[in-house]
Amino acid sequence: MTKKTFPLSKVYRLLEPGPVLLLSTSHKDKPNIMTMSWQTMMEFEPPLVGCVISGRNHSFEALTKTKECVLNIPSAELAQQVVGIGNCSGSKVDKFKKFKLTALPASQVAAPMIGECFAHLECKVVDTRMVNKYNFFVLEVVKAWIDSAQKNPRTLHHRGKGQFMLAGETIKIPSRMA
Amino acid sequence: MTKKTFPLSKVYRLLEPGPVLLLSTSHKDKPNIMTMSWQTMMEFEPPLVGCVISGRNHSFEALTKTKECVLNIPSAELAQQVVGIGNCSGSKVDKFKKFKLTALPASQVAAPMIGECFAHLECKVVDTRMVNKYNFFVLEVVKAWIDSAQKNPRTLHHRGKGQFMLAGETIKIPSRMA
Repeated sequence: MTKKTFPLSKVYRLLEPGPVLLLSTSHKDKPNIMTMSWQTMMEFEPPLVGCVISGRNHSFEALTKTKECVLNIPSAELAQQVVGIGNCSGSKVDKFKKFKLTALPASQVAAPMIGECFAHLECKVVDTRMVNKYNFFVLEVVKAWIDSAQKNPRTLHHRGKGQFMLAGETIKIPSRMA
Repeated sequence: MTKKTFPLSKVYRLLEPGPVLLLSTSHKDKPNIMTMSWQTMMEFEPPLVGCVISGRNHSFEALTKTKECVLNIPSAELAQQVVGIGNCSGSKVDKFKKFKLTALPASQVAAPMIGECFAHLECKVVDTRMVNKYNFFVLEVVKAWIDSAQKNPRTLHHRGKGQFMLAGETIKIPSRMA
């Protein structure tokens, strides 16, 4: 098992760059996945993540009913699956099967982790006040995992219409910012 | 003038990849700038953007009082200024002067555009219900600009502690996603 605990206090470092995420749920024993780019950090620790999930997505009902999900971060090697997942509905397709992805058990939530991704944030829905108006959910990350076997993964960043910017080099500038 | 109108319907393509932003305000005739990475798209058109602005930031009061700002997107050439802006307070420093940045008049809001950035989203605060609990503002983009002189700008993506991922190459995969 190459999945290692990742400190909750550092979750913002995974999400601030703005990678495409795969949100996994499990509802009535049926796992599902959706592709997502509309999310933001809202608090460092415990880490809060705000995200918009359209009511047109099959995952909307699963998240509303179960109040649990996993945010998985795919690397560039999964770009075809990321697009494929975004172009079909869990109401018709078993996406784990169709895209040959591995559902791993999470520790704090019933939703599965996607084994092929390099990071996994187990989340519980903690605020639904903005769901009616904006489909905006506030999630608390209750457990985080990183895959020690994936070195320097390149994240995907959606530019619209199937265009993705791939993460480039990292620079470091002396800073007092978190 | 190389600043050209950019269609509101395409604003999400600028923000979905998750670039670092420079948020500019003007309060009591004093312009100010802050560095920001905690934002997400919330609606395509009119474009809504949700963002977290800590009460510790001088910009918090300006945004609360004036309900206007500009979200400017800097390219990698501005990395030093982006960090410098994030490491000092507008309560003590005129950041436009200190960082030799150009305040250009916007069209719909009193907050200035930062001339050296390659895109500018003029915004009005449209929902403050989540400000008390999360410092979370909902902004509507009322006018967008792009700088036609900056070709293929590389955006900055904050990884924490002054580390920035620079935008790499773009790939295209056939997709029906927006």
